[in-house]
Amino acid sequence: MSDQKGFVVWMTGLSGSGKSTIAMAMIPKLKARGVNFERLDGDVVRASLTRDLGFTKEDRAMNIERVTFVAKLLSRNNVGCICSFISPYQSVRDSVRSQVTNFIEVYVNAPLEVCEDRDVKGMYKLAREGKIKNFTGISDPFEAPENADVEIKTDGMTVDESAEQLIKYLEENGYIPTLA
Amino acid sequence: MSDQKGFVVWMTGLSGSGKSTIAMAMIPKLKARGVNFERLDGDVVRASLTRDLGFTKEDRAMNIERVTFVAKLLSRNNVGCICSFISPYQSVRDSVRSQVTNFIEVYVNAPLEVCEDRDVKGMYKLAREGKIKNFTGISDPFEAPENADVEIKTDGMTVDESAEQLIKYLEENGYIPTLA
Repeated sequence: MSDQKGFVVWMTGLSGSGKSTIAMAMIPKLKARGVNFERLDGDVVRASLTRDLGFTKEDRAMNIERVTFVAKLLSRNNVGCICSFISPYQSVRDSVRSQVTNFIEVYVNAPLEVCEDRDVKGMYKLAREGKIKNFTGISDPFEAPENADVEIKTDGMTVDESAEQLIKYLEENGYIPTLA
Repeated sequence: MSDQKGFVVWMTGLSGSGKSTIAMAMIPKLKARGVNFERLDGDVVRASLTRDLGFTKEDRAMNIERVTFVAKLLSRNNVGCICSFISPYQSVRDSVRSQVTNFIEVYVNAPLEVCEDRDVKGMYKLAREGKIKNFTGISDPFEAPENADVEIKTDGMTVDESAEQLIKYLEENGYIPTLA
């Protein structure tokens, strides 16, 4: 706890790429190291912080804005943040980077076909049928990170391997302690 | 820093009672003790976190709801929060208490006449003229805390004395270290 720094692991990627799953897999690993951290994810923030917001472009921007405020306050007080948001625009991610402490841009990269095939929430089907508009990867662009700090190709790794890759990055950069 | 706990100093009181002024006066004292903390106040949160909100009853409730979310995450990660919000309803303050770590209800108590006389923002005048509706203390109730953890009577103390009273409370309860 005393030898941790604030940081913001920001996972960006298509819906279904594995962002939230990796975040969940990181939780026990961070706890085992005694790290103070929070997971910031759609399911966490939409229960209160952003429950007035829908999925229009404006609402999604405001969603990220509020999350950024929270991540800024946590990270500058030595608390780690594990954030998973599609966040398709480089300019938005750059804006988060400029506001928080120790921003780590993580590109959770899986081919669109794979994400669409997984279709965990049935959203790709609806997007293909035109029932959801402005869906990232189908009817809205996803700007792949130009210089991601970490890239995780979830297509060829297990969830645990993906989470370990991030933990190792945090350890090697001195953000979290190694296991005793 | 290592011997601090998370806490939420929640200052409630009429507009003009001195909440924000006391919060500002606490900043250098907390910094001198190396405390990790954040000040959460209208001017801080309305710039981003709650910039879509006005001053209707519903908007004020949502304002407190979002602030509570932030204070919850900070306080449970050993970060202190200095919050100043009129928060006139006991039920709302009780709800904050139930969600955060080490909630300290501080009644910043100054007589209405004194607050109205100060009228720092010219709001009482507008409220008396009926130009602002539902103004706490004039046309809307203020429920004084039933069992405040700390009561500060700003009418008979300097700002520094008020801030010191709170710092002493935090020290005596082991939330922050004493000055070396």
